Amino acid sequence: MDALRIVEVGPRDGLQNEKTVIPTETKLAFIQCLLASGLQEIEVASFVSPKWVPQMGDAAELWPQLPAEGSFSALVPNAKGLERALSVGVDRIAVFTAASEAFTLKNINMTIDQSIEAFGGVVSNFRAAGGTFIRGYVSTVVECPYAGRIDPLSVVTIVNRLWSLGVDEISLGETVGVATPNDVRSLIAALREGCSPRIQEKLVWHFHDTYGTALSNVEVALEAGFRAFDSSAAGLGGCPYAPGAAGNLATEDLVYFAERQGLATGVDLKALAQASRAILEVLGKASTSKARQAVLSRDVAG
Amino acid sequence: MDALRIVEVGPRDGLQNEKTVIPTETKLAFIQCLLASGLQEIEVASFVSPKWVPQMGDAAELWPQLPAEGSFSALVPNAKGLERALSVGVDRIAVFTAASEAFTLKNINMTIDQSIEAFGGVVSNFRAAGGTFIRGYVSTVVECPYAGRIDPLSVVTIVNRLWSLGVDEISLGETVGVATPNDVRSLIAALREGCSPRIQEKLVWHFHDTYGTALSNVEVALEAGFRAFDSSAAGLGGCPYAPGAAGNLATEDLVYFAERQGLATGVDLKALAQASRAILEVLGKASTSKARQAVLSRDVAG
Repeated sequence: MDALRIVEVGPRDGLQNEKTVIPTETKLAFIQCLLASGLQEIEVASFVSPKWVPQMGDAAELWPQLPAEGSFSALVPNAKGLERALSVGVDRIAVFTAASEAFTLKNINMTIDQSIEAFGGVVSNFRAAGGTFIRGYVSTVVECPYAGRIDPLSVVTIVNRLWSLGVDEISLGETVGVATPNDVRSLIAALREGCSPRIQEKLVWHFHDTYGTALSNVEVALEAGFRAFDSSAAGLGGCPYAPGAAGNLATEDLVYFAERQGLATGVDLKALAQASRAILEVLGKASTSKARQAVLSRDVAG
Repeated sequence: MDALRIVEVGPRDGLQNEKTVIPTETKLAFIQCLLASGLQEIEVASFVSPKWVPQMGDAAELWPQLPAEGSFSALVPNAKGLERALSVGVDRIAVFTAASEAFTLKNINMTIDQSIEAFGGVVSNFRAAGGTFIRGYVSTVVECPYAGRIDPLSVVTIVNRLWSLGVDEISLGETVGVATPNDVRSLIAALREGCSPRIQEKLVWHFHDTYGTALSNVEVALEAGFRAFDSSAAGLGGCPYAPGAAGNLATEDLVYFAERQGLATGVDLKALAQASRAILEVLGKASTSKARQAVLSRDVAG
C-alpha cells in the first residue's frame, strides 16, 4: 500500500488566529492525542513576537515539555525568533513567505526579496547551530486576498529561490481556499516545467477548504504523484479573509479520503476525531470537518 | 462556455427526512427564491403516503400553487401516488429504486424486481395520462448501509432495466456519501461498457457529502464528460445513516465549483446562499455548505 505523508499543522496554524489563548497544558494534551491517533509530524508552535501573536506566546515553554516521540517543528519568522527557538533546542523550523508581493507586505511587512534575504540569515544560522530540518512556506500560490490571481510562474520563481537558500522541503499554501482542480493542474504544470525533479520531490501541498474544494485539489495532486500534504485536525484555523468560513483542510477529511483511495496514513480516524474535542470546547467552536462529524455520528448511531 | 445542468432536490429530498413539517407557504417561498437565484429544475414534492412521510403531506396542495416559470417534478412511489399526482396535474415525475436488494427491502419494502414491476405500471399509466418526463432514481450505487459495497455491474443491470421501462433520465445516488474518486471511476468504467451511449447521455449524478468527498467525485464525473448533477440548497437533507452528518451535496458548493472550473450554471451564488435562510431557521439547522458560508461571510467582511 502506497503511503501518504501528513504534516499536522493544527497546534500552530490552527490556533494562531484564534481569539482565545489556549493554555500550554491544553496544547500539550492536544498534541499528545494527535500523536496517539498516529500522526507523526506536527508543527506545534511559532516563535513570533508574543506581543503580536499571544496565542503562540508560550512557544519557549511548550517546546521542552513535548513528548519524546514525534517529529515536531516550529515557525521562525526572523533572527530574534530563531534565537529564542535555538535556546530551547528547536531542531526543525519553518520559514514563511508568499508568491504575492501584496501579501508579504501586509502579512510580514516585507517585500518578497526582503523575506528571502531575512530567511537566508535564519537558515545559515540555524544550520551553524546544528539544526536538522527546514521547511519553507509559500503562501497564496493560487490567489492572494489583496492582489487576486497569482501567475503560476511567480510560484515557480519563489520556490526556486527558497530552495536555493537550502531548505529541505517547501509547502505550497492555497491560502484563500478558492482553488479548484484546474487551478492546481496549471500550477503543477508550471512546477513540472520550472523546478528540478529534486525540488518537485520535496513539495508539500497545503490546501484550504473555504469553498469545500480542498479534497478535489488533493486528488489532482495525488494523481500527479505527490504524496505529502498539510492539514489541521478538525479543520482548526478558519479563514482570516472570510470570518466564520472554513480554513485549513481538516486532517480527518484528508485521512478518510486517502485511506479510501488506497493510501496508508497510519492514522486512526476515530482517535483523531476525538483528539480535538477539548480544544474545540475551549475555543467554543465547531469543527469544519465532515468526516469527523460522520465518524462521531456513526459511533453514536452504533 | 460549457454548461452544467443542476437538478435542485432540496424542497423534496432535503425536507423529507426532517422532523419538522414545513408549512406549504414556507416551501413555496423557498422554491420562489431558488428560482430567482437561477435554478430551473426543482424537485418539489413526493406523493408518498402522508401517514408515513408527513413532511411531504402537502404535495397536492403545493403543486397547484407553484410559480408559472420553472420546471418542477415530484416523486411518485406507486399507483396510488400517481393517481394523486395526476389529479393535480403533475407532468414530471420520478420513480425510485436501488442497486441493493437489502436497501429496497428496508426502504420501500419491495425487492428490486417488485419495484421495477410496480414502476412499469406507473410509467405506462403516466404516459397514457399525457405525462411528459420521467426520472428514475437508483440509490446506493457505490455502497449500501445494510449490504456494504455494491458491485458496479449491479448498477449497470438496474440502470438498463429502468431504462427499458421508458424513463427519460436516470439519477445515480451515492446514498451513503462514502465514495471517493476511485469508486466513481470504477462505476463509470462499468457504465461505459454496459450501457448504451444513449443511456449514458441521460445519466445524472447524485452525490452525498457525508465525508466531504462529493466535489472530488463531481470532478471525476466532469472529466468523464458528464454534465448533469443533483444537489440540495444549503446541503439540506442530512444523512439518515449518520445523524448530524452531511447528506446531499450542497448546491452552493456545486455552483461555486462548476463556475470556477469554467462551467456555466446560470445561478447567482449570493442569491442562492440567501435562498435557504428561512427554511434553515424553521428547521433550526445550520447549512452544511462551505461555499454558502464563505459567500455569506465575505459579504459581511465586505
